[in-house]
Amino acid sequence: MDYPAPFLALTVGDPCGIGPEITVKALSSLPEPFRSRLIVVGPGLALKNTARDLGIVTLLWCPWDHPTLGNIRLIDTGGKQSFRAGTVCKEGGKASIHALEEAHKLCRAGVCAGMVTGPIGKMAIHLAGSPFSGHTDMLAAFCGVKATRMAMVHGRFRVVMTTLHVPYRDVPRLLTPASVFETLRLAHQAFRSARKPFPHIAVAGLNPHAGEDGLFGIEEREAISPAIAKFRGLNPNVHGPFPADSLYKSEMRKTMDVFVAHTHDQGLIAIKTLGKLNCVNVTLGLPYVRTSVGHGTAYDIAGQGVADERGLLAAIKIGFQLTKTRLKKKS
Amino acid sequence: MDYPAPFLALTVGDPCGIGPEITVKALSSLPEPFRSRLIVVGPGLALKNTARDLGIVTLLWCPWDHPTLGNIRLIDTGGKQSFRAGTVCKEGGKASIHALEEAHKLCRAGVCAGMVTGPIGKMAIHLAGSPFSGHTDMLAAFCGVKATRMAMVHGRFRVVMTTLHVPYRDVPRLLTPASVFETLRLAHQAFRSARKPFPHIAVAGLNPHAGEDGLFGIEEREAISPAIAKFRGLNPNVHGPFPADSLYKSEMRKTMDVFVAHTHDQGLIAIKTLGKLNCVNVTLGLPYVRTSVGHGTAYDIAGQGVADERGLLAAIKIGFQLTKTRLKKKS
Repeated sequence: MDYPAPFLALTVGDPCGIGPEITVKALSSLPEPFRSRLIVVGPGLALKNTARDLGIVTLLWCPWDHPTLGNIRLIDTGGKQSFRAGTVCKEGGKASIHALEEAHKLCRAGVCAGMVTGPIGKMAIHLAGSPFSGHTDMLAAFCGVKATRMAMVHGRFRVVMTTLHVPYRDVPRLLTPASVFETLRLAHQAFRSARKPFPHIAVAGLNPHAGEDGLFGIEEREAISPAIAKFRGLNPNVHGPFPADSLYKSEMRKTMDVFVAHTHDQGLIAIKTLGKLNCVNVTLGLPYVRTSVGHGTAYDIAGQGVADERGLLAAIKIGFQLTKTRLKKKS
Repeated sequence: MDYPAPFLALTVGDPCGIGPEITVKALSSLPEPFRSRLIVVGPGLALKNTARDLGIVTLLWCPWDHPTLGNIRLIDTGGKQSFRAGTVCKEGGKASIHALEEAHKLCRAGVCAGMVTGPIGKMAIHLAGSPFSGHTDMLAAFCGVKATRMAMVHGRFRVVMTTLHVPYRDVPRLLTPASVFETLRLAHQAFRSARKPFPHIAVAGLNPHAGEDGLFGIEEREAISPAIAKFRGLNPNVHGPFPADSLYKSEMRKTMDVFVAHTHDQGLIAIKTLGKLNCVNVTLGLPYVRTSVGHGTAYDIAGQGVADERGLLAAIKIGFQLTKTRLKKKS
């Protein structure tokens, strides 16, 4: 490599969950030069012990800014304490938060272009005194950002949602021309590229048959269509609103670069039904890239060596894609 | 065959759409003894002309109760007039309604155990003076039935919905312990069999994460869970409420016989994304079986010989399955 490429921070998540295990498994199978462009952030002892227990001997840990001393750049957040696999505890929560703060600093300092986050537990960070419910609101607060959107990515299939963790009945009130426009803008910004400056975006309606001309509801007319009309000034390749039940059929998945849905389930049913483990969660609206595994801490199988690292590998891959690094595999 | 098996009526639908074409194509490829247990109801001249135009010469039409005179039992509803392919007109609407009335009579008289309906056009039946919007409400009125439910079936994947063509925002009001119980009861009744008297039924929540213990909504607690609890007295194999986004994953599709969802799109997104053309629409709550193609009249391609009959073949197959006929293929 004769040019500097951006780094991605990789947080281990809750060390009492499957985070350390999927991290070392992923690192051991990740090809260069991706591996050397990651900065792992987490408790070093837990990582080293996990690698040893799994018989993984190819990882040589080194300070993040001294890559000649090893092959895995590490920012060690964790003192000497060891973590008990499978327990939901304050220590696990503290380590989760600490790693995230360090990763945020790396991104804000311009060292990293983004982060990939391992799974953390809502209860553990609560026990550690955090007022936040998870990664997304913590990072939004760190960055002073209000409007974020969740995207789910599976290969070329990408969905962004206007509303997320809100009751079903609150959605009509939250769908406004402004909120839908913001979803479209963030989807456009995240998934455009030099090759595709105007990605094709397909937008769902909210009601059955996308409202069937007002017969089955008004949100298409009052919020969704006005937002699409305004957004067309930014990107003419926006289409819809379409009936959600046939939105994700294979012809559409072939021609559309992004889908915009309006509720948690309207966005996630199709991609999770097709995508299984390898769905990657992406947060849009932060000043840096953030991807995450789609699954949780899986405390119940932590420390057993049976966790599947493919979700994390997919999150790393999508993270690099979104930072638009053009790293080639060493031949 | 040494025992009498029930008949199914097969209505041609709007003769100006693709109905006649998919009917004759399906009949020409349908194996015995299924073919001889169908009673085709529709305009005979249109069917004969269509078969001739397509070069299908194996269909010998005969009066429904004189099978020795041919191999396709027919109730001819249509005078001598011919229909213009691709037009939305009163004549097409009248023929659509007439066939449906005859099929209903056959079912009510006990000649047929159910019907398979070809596609009709909402506007055409309106032009013919019908106050109904489609098959389902017409049949419900004929039968004097109030509560029907739509099921969508693709192979072993079956979904039944509590609400259908209503605005998004009306759904919470329409979800009551009684309405959800009725969905469960009808799903159970339709999809149980001698081999499986207690089908496994998985029920969706309405809110994200099925409400996450009331954090994201109350409909699970107030309507869905009480209905499940009551229904357990009839069928202990009822499960949920589950988060809708992971409800249809492959492990669930392998173990569950029926899914119950609560809105049009919550029920249809997954099955239509996976099922494409071969989804079969089934009406539950009528005193007889009724299946239908999932697609419409396709006036735009009518008369061109390019319509795909696989949707109708799937509807016929599911229709026979649901009447629990035990016909064997002739060997």
